Amino acid sequence: MRPSGRAADALRTIILEPGAAHHAEGSCRIRMGLTEVLCTASVEGRVPGFLRGKGEGWVTAEYGMLPRATHSRGDREAARGKQSGRTQEIQRLIGRSLRAVVDRKAMGELSITLDCDVLTADGGTRCAAITGAWVALHLAFQHCVAKRVIAANPIIGQVAAVSCGLWGGEPVLDLDYAEDSAAQADANFVLTGTGGIVEIQATAEGEPFAEAQLLGLLGLARKGTAELFAAQRKAIGA
Amino acid sequence: MRPSGRAADALRTIILEPGAAHHAEGSCRIRMGLTEVLCTASVEGRVPGFLRGKGEGWVTAEYGMLPRATHSRGDREAARGKQSGRTQEIQRLIGRSLRAVVDRKAMGELSITLDCDVLTADGGTRCAAITGAWVALHLAFQHCVAKRVIAANPIIGQVAAVSCGLWGGEPVLDLDYAEDSAAQADANFVLTGTGGIVEIQATAEGEPFAEAQLLGLLGLARKGTAELFAAQRKAIGA
Amino acid sequence: MRPSGRAADALRTIILEPGAAHHAEGSCRIRMGLTEVLCTASVEGRVPGFLRGKGEGWVTAEYGMLPRATHSRGDREAARGKQSGRTQEIQRLIGRSLRAVVDRKAMGELSITLDCDVLTADGGTRCAAITGAWVALHLAFQHCVAKRVIAANPIIGQVAAVSCGLWGGEPVLDLDYAEDSAAQADANFVLTGTGGIVEIQATAEGEPFAEAQLLGLLGLARKGTAELFAAQRKAIGA
Amino acid sequence: MRPSGRAADALRTIILEPGAAHHAEGSCRIRMGLTEVLCTASVEGRVPGFLRGKGEGWVTAEYGMLPRATHSRGDREAARGKQSGRTQEIQRLIGRSLRAVVDRKAMGELSITLDCDVLTADGGTRCAAITGAWVALHLAFQHCVAKRVIAANPIIGQVAAVSCGLWGGEPVLDLDYAEDSAAQADANFVLTGTGGIVEIQATAEGEPFAEAQLLGLLGLARKGTAELFAAQRKAIGA
Amino acid sequence: MRPSGRAADALRTIILEPGAAHHAEGSCRIRMGLTEVLCTASVEGRVPGFLRGKGEGWVTAEYGMLPRATHSRGDREAARGKQSGRTQEIQRLIGRSLRAVVDRKAMGELSITLDCDVLTADGGTRCAAITGAWVALHLAFQHCVAKRVIAANPIIGQVAAVSCGLWGGEPVLDLDYAEDSAAQADANFVLTGTGGIVEIQATAEGEPFAEAQLLGLLGLARKGTAELFAAQRKAIGA
Amino acid sequence: MRPSGRAADALRTIILEPGAAHHAEGSCRIRMGLTEVLCTASVEGRVPGFLRGKGEGWVTAEYGMLPRATHSRGDREAARGKQSGRTQEIQRLIGRSLRAVVDRKAMGELSITLDCDVLTADGGTRCAAITGAWVALHLAFQHCVAKRVIAANPIIGQVAAVSCGLWGGEPVLDLDYAEDSAAQADANFVLTGTGGIVEIQATAEGEPFAEAQLLGLLGLARKGTAELFAAQRKAIGA
Repeated sequence: MRPSGRAADALRTIILEPGAAHHAEGSCRIRMGLTEVLCTASVEGRVPGFLRGKGEGWVTAEYGMLPRATHSRGDREAARGKQSGRTQEIQRLIGRSLRAVVDRKAMGELSITLDCDVLTADGGTRCAAITGAWVALHLAFQHCVAKRVIAANPIIGQVAAVSCGLWGGEPVLDLDYAEDSAAQADANFVLTGTGGIVEIQATAEGEPFAEAQLLGLLGLARKGTAELFAAQRKAIGA
Repeated sequence: MRPSGRAADALRTIILEPGAAHHAEGSCRIRMGLTEVLCTASVEGRVPGFLRGKGEGWVTAEYGMLPRATHSRGDREAARGKQSGRTQEIQRLIGRSLRAVVDRKAMGELSITLDCDVLTADGGTRCAAITGAWVALHLAFQHCVAKRVIAANPIIGQVAAVSCGLWGGEPVLDLDYAEDSAAQADANFVLTGTGGIVEIQATAEGEPFAEAQLLGLLGLARKGTAELFAAQRKAIGA
Repeated sequence: MRPSGRAADALRTIILEPGAAHHAEGSCRIRMGLTEVLCTASVEGRVPGFLRGKGEGWVTAEYGMLPRATHSRGDREAARGKQSGRTQEIQRLIGRSLRAVVDRKAMGELSITLDCDVLTADGGTRCAAITGAWVALHLAFQHCVAKRVIAANPIIGQVAAVSCGLWGGEPVLDLDYAEDSAAQADANFVLTGTGGIVEIQATAEGEPFAEAQLLGLLGLARKGTAELFAAQRKAIGA
Repeated sequence: MRPSGRAADALRTIILEPGAAHHAEGSCRIRMGLTEVLCTASVEGRVPGFLRGKGEGWVTAEYGMLPRATHSRGDREAARGKQSGRTQEIQRLIGRSLRAVVDRKAMGELSITLDCDVLTADGGTRCAAITGAWVALHLAFQHCVAKRVIAANPIIGQVAAVSCGLWGGEPVLDLDYAEDSAAQADANFVLTGTGGIVEIQATAEGEPFAEAQLLGLLGLARKGTAELFAAQRKAIGA
Repeated sequence: MRPSGRAADALRTIILEPGAAHHAEGSCRIRMGLTEVLCTASVEGRVPGFLRGKGEGWVTAEYGMLPRATHSRGDREAARGKQSGRTQEIQRLIGRSLRAVVDRKAMGELSITLDCDVLTADGGTRCAAITGAWVALHLAFQHCVAKRVIAANPIIGQVAAVSCGLWGGEPVLDLDYAEDSAAQADANFVLTGTGGIVEIQATAEGEPFAEAQLLGLLGLARKGTAELFAAQRKAIGA
Repeated sequence: MRPSGRAADALRTIILEPGAAHHAEGSCRIRMGLTEVLCTASVEGRVPGFLRGKGEGWVTAEYGMLPRATHSRGDREAARGKQSGRTQEIQRLIGRSLRAVVDRKAMGELSITLDCDVLTADGGTRCAAITGAWVALHLAFQHCVAKRVIAANPIIGQVAAVSCGLWGGEPVLDLDYAEDSAAQADANFVLTGTGGIVEIQATAEGEPFAEAQLLGLLGLARKGTAELFAAQRKAIGA
């Protein structure tokens, strides 16, 4: 039995709240169990230097955690004067994942920054950030279409993420913090709505794991993201 | 008529949500109109170096704003690698204001850090942070009493803050962002439940102002904080 | 009796030395008792990005303290790699105070940076900096007029600052370091030559204070700044 | 045909030069084609704070690239004042990978830092770093055994890494820079000598990829690391 | 004829003002022509980590320049967040030079920090700093002797510095800024009262120079420092 | 007898390996005994802001040390977030030394950055860097000539450097680390192929030294650099 008492293939309760941020062009607050992330999408009418004049847009992400999102208070990164390696690794992952489902030529020379700020952390924050950021991004593009800044929504598919892990040698879906801390292996899967793999980050925390276990984790991830895709569609009113 | 259409002596709608953060020993989400600040109080069993061995506690504050709390996205301070002068000025003010109503000898060698993170900004964020942080601090001390870490709650009074300004030469209460940007003068008042003045920061944005106007602003601040004190008492169940 | 032995309404000895810095377009060394601040005004023929093309000038300030300006040596901010919150708060105050008496349209697209460096600190350094910086700024504008860079001096009035405090419950003028450390409340007043209030920063260090006390402090500040205005006029040869 | 003209399952020429650094307790220069990384292992007789008194050791890694290791000169991270997100991500990966094959209890309270500095970059630098660092680490532990600091070598297995990618939809082994830049997907596999998976980082650069493709990449990685394990054993004289 | 019109072997007017800083244990303001440096010596009752428990003291230096010490305003290093290479090079030189004439065993475990802050720069600031710092250091040690912290002044000799340069191929003494900018070579000599060489930093700015020229420069430096040693002795009342 | 057992006027074994870096326009790996420095020259088709439009080129240098180049591991400067004063002092010296033998007008508006990275340190790294960087620079200019970016090689002479020191009062040539640590004085000489002095940095570590000793050190430096100049010529195939 896994610590949370959930079935091996059960997600935590998912709540997506689109439009949660007053000023942003697109936004979504996502909860997966206790984990809560506020995702905002901010549109700017210019692109970074390396893309200027190429007729393409850019999508990037920043990630942060409120100091007391966690069990014990962590340093405020702004006060410490730099972002940790973990923060940078996560925000690079979020950016890559969202770019995988955007037709950047169709965006024109716009930039969208996805800010994913963790209000409460209980495991799976990077995955929740990706799933919620997709909704924020979709809404921001809808806003641009409504404002006639772009002709059509350049999103070409859904993307969502979930973490799975090995518990007692068996794969389980959607680890919470207590499970994540004690799992034998931990894998984050970023998948598209049509079943493609965008990114896998699988790490053995203790014993190395086997190919069959990897496939078991991937199977659970497919099941979990199917539910997340449905929730995303509902959130954007599709 | 002021831009918001409110009466000169009308506060915006106030909502205090105690216990809003899952992990913190004390917390309060405060809304004043659109402005929304999450205040958490984190307890630690040791004090900074300059107080070690003196038998006194410490209360300090950190302040931050999510990048898209504002109309247009601001830089993330953690990414830029330093906190702005404005951020530091505000977090020093919050810390001083709360320390004014705590018996630090009675705390013993504990530290409490108040994190005030602005989720949505529409003027008056530093004042909302002070008012909400008082609730978070009170609850954290109650938690310490319940855990028998301290014998009694060392808070010796209430503290709350409100901004007032001159509009068309006349004092108005609780400026929102549009009012704040256009006001002739802007004053933040930090007052105690018994009518004492803890801090005044009054700044002429255009024309210098007169003593009579200062007294008009102070009068409105007394009226506004009276309502805030009532809301705080309700939030802590007093 | 206050620690310094001065009458409640007595300033320390004031010495303004205009032209104290060899290279600067305008400068003034100000002493208030032991406190000594070197103020220089540096003119540059361009404005910050946010003002470019608007036909307005800019006045800003930076503040620093030599490491051994104080009783015990403090860290050198350049070596520590960042300015403290206190430093940033003070330099923002100096800039705002001076901008309050400059017609920035009349400046044209010039920038003036006021550097206020504390050589010896004995309380009231930020107030001395404002009072001395006004002289430096005036002289720099005169220099620009003499060089025919601008047609007329765009200063529209005098500004000076003084700190007052509560000692044994009674207001006293111009706190030195020993008095400032032990005062019940400490208030900095920035006033104009015509009696207007530009900024008030009043802080209760111990007990909150009352409205009547605030008015007592303001009354002393008016008396003190009257003497400072006279000294400024003498320094610029008016 | 892949750009390098190699067969789909062919590694580049591998050269491991153990003992390449004069001062280090263990070291190895590794070349995979043009890619060249100097790996050193430095032993210290104490552990980081979070492990003090627990009777366990620590293995960590730092990664860097000489400014002109690349086609065009990159910024020197020391001059820019911070390590990039990519650098931090890679050094965290190297550390985790090596810790997976060390019995940290058996180390006692020693720390080993693996410095992996890229002298020439032509793709696959993080994988080469892991493979070479294992040799450096093994030699450093042998040095500790020879010095009677520890009783036996606490390495419990081999670990090596290789990158694979999809080229024209087909899996190819050991991407060089030109291949990596143009591949449809890029996956880094960290495997143990006994066939276990320590880490997978698989990223679709263009189209998402399918489960069957993932298995094809993993199959090539097994073949490639088999050759790397043999080279490692030869390098340590086993 | 050199630009300043001085004879080739003429120093600028030297003024040493001992005790110029109110709070420091030792201090000296030094002027060499327009160049003006405030040197303070601050005593602390502990040594840096690398000397703890060795029964030796430490002497170190920090150097800074007020932003408008120069012809055109320079960045404030504290605002920019780091000290320039030039600043660090100079403060290392000052520290080494003073340590050369101190018996650090005789100091006991004390540290002295010499802060050398340039108020006006007109060439030769590092040399003036060394010459003035020696006076500040001597006075600080006298203070320690008077306070019975140490038994006797541990200074074992005088040290002073002067810059010389080649002008029209001929050696000239004590370059001012205009001369320094146009000289063919620039050499700083740090010499002891007994004629020993502590440090030479000689740099060809244009053409390389010859051994005979080096000796010419050294000869002038001996003459110049003889005058500086006399001024130092007068300043300490010897 | 000096610690290394070498004759007083004997250099260590010198090996110059031109073209050691695959990607750089010019490069040279230099060994002097155990000391090993990789020097690369990177060409860029633009100059820093202060030279723009002046028709001159720029040559600058950066210096670094791998963390385990030394006996015990040093901090990685990129991880610590800043370069030490020593690093900055050295890279400024290398840049000045090379600029002394380049006709920057003849370069046109090109920049060349010399990266000197120490792989193994055993004393004399800054001198080895200068000697090796000259070869890298020469080769990079040859590359530019071959590519018809410039008409002729703008190097106007050779430059090389060597350190000498006083051992038992007597001058010895080319100190290794053990000798450098214990020498009475340490002097770095940067000389040109025609016998001119570009830079002297001579420091008494213990006793001040005398003019005659300085001349003895300079004589050895001439002898040592004569050998280095020959090695450079051979390395460039002259």
